[in-house]
Amino acid sequence: MRGCAGLPTQKRSEENPLERNPITGHEVAAGTAIEDRSFAIIDALIGTHGHTAEQWPIVRRLIHTSGDPEINPLIQFHPKAVRAGIQALQSGCTILADVKMVQVGLSPRRLAAYGNRVVNYLSDPKVRALAKQEETTLSVQAMRSAWRDGVLDGAIVGVGNAPTALLELIQLMRNEQVRPALIIGMPVGFVSAAESKEALKLGSPVPWMMIEGTKGGSPLVVAAIHALIGLAVEG
Amino acid sequence: MRGCAGLPTQKRSEENPLERNPITGHEVAAGTAIEDRSFAIIDALIGTHGHTAEQWPIVRRLIHTSGDPEINPLIQFHPKAVRAGIQALQSGCTILADVKMVQVGLSPRRLAAYGNRVVNYLSDPKVRALAKQEETTLSVQAMRSAWRDGVLDGAIVGVGNAPTALLELIQLMRNEQVRPALIIGMPVGFVSAAESKEALKLGSPVPWMMIEGTKGGSPLVVAAIHALIGLAVEG
Repeated sequence: MRGCAGLPTQKRSEENPLERNPITGHEVAAGTAIEDRSFAIIDALIGTHGHTAEQWPIVRRLIHTSGDPEINPLIQFHPKAVRAGIQALQSGCTILADVKMVQVGLSPRRLAAYGNRVVNYLSDPKVRALAKQEETTLSVQAMRSAWRDGVLDGAIVGVGNAPTALLELIQLMRNEQVRPALIIGMPVGFVSAAESKEALKLGSPVPWMMIEGTKGGSPLVVAAIHALIGLAVEG
Repeated sequence: MRGCAGLPTQKRSEENPLERNPITGHEVAAGTAIEDRSFAIIDALIGTHGHTAEQWPIVRRLIHTSGDPEINPLIQFHPKAVRAGIQALQSGCTILADVKMVQVGLSPRRLAAYGNRVVNYLSDPKVRALAKQEETTLSVQAMRSAWRDGVLDGAIVGVGNAPTALLELIQLMRNEQVRPALIIGMPVGFVSAAESKEALKLGSPVPWMMIEGTKGGSPLVVAAIHALIGLAVEG
């Protein structure tokens, strides 16, 4: 397609829109059709992916969400990560989001499958005050607040932004015996992100999944949780 | 750093936290220090970047946000994009976000500089009903709703998710003479994303910036707007 003259029409008649399970499916049929086509393209593009059958739907959705096939070999899983995530979701666990973008990115329709509540502490005024007082990032204080509120044990913790949130969580697991059900470690950037994920991999007493290196982000955490909900619903 | 034994302490005492301009600066000093260090790393990593002096702060923030230096040569600008974005922001333009993740990712503190309002139509019940009825994506109907409400003219339009939103906007510019001030075209994925951005580049009657190919995402749109606000405030 080149230029305006060649613009496709917006009605996706070629995609045979079908109604889907409202939990696993997308909001509308046209969206679902695009997603299915995208997954097929990624399957063909990646070929032998090096992940287990239960990990691949998660990896594929992460590639779909980032538009970046190069993350395939960077995505790593604790051997019990997928099972732990599914079980936690099915038992109605809380999801802690490090940033509000993760919280609003999660589809209420998908979350309704098991009634998982999503919490986020970053905009809490107390968090802001403590960050100033103790000269830390907001993300560190948000993680500590979640711990003080007893939110972390048994939760799925998604970190899509700040390495300092992930590092603080690792400290809390070591020093305070905090035990989330699953940690999705996907902070992004050039300052401590790669190191925080390496620390998660080497030092976490609970299952985790992560993207090695500098890449990550809120949409990836959202995608991982959506994929886990899909797996949980499909059994 | 390897394993828990080598975890850095969370207090960023080495970073000499300084209070900043509350508009251009980050929420707290520790966050600002990390950002500054990240920018310095990116400067060193990329070296000769191939962008103009006014484009580079935007490109650098996009790399910072994605953790992906490989997007550098993929980021393209209409020659008037940066000026158009700055002028629109300074005159208090509306920002249309294609998804809520862009809306909540934008810092209220930064937006306060010029009082720019951020709108998003994706969760509007009418949008949902129309998408079902007309067998389109929600994103197409959200863009049409924004047009019917007269939001698009003079606005900065940020598309970080759906190619169909960008394609619909291009149609509205062609067929309805809609004229945003600036289009930030960064939809992501393997179905129509690259094509939608190519269409923007070749067919847009108004200034644009975009990332060539499959990569994109809400955090990138947020980063581009934050960088533009920074440039506007710094004059």
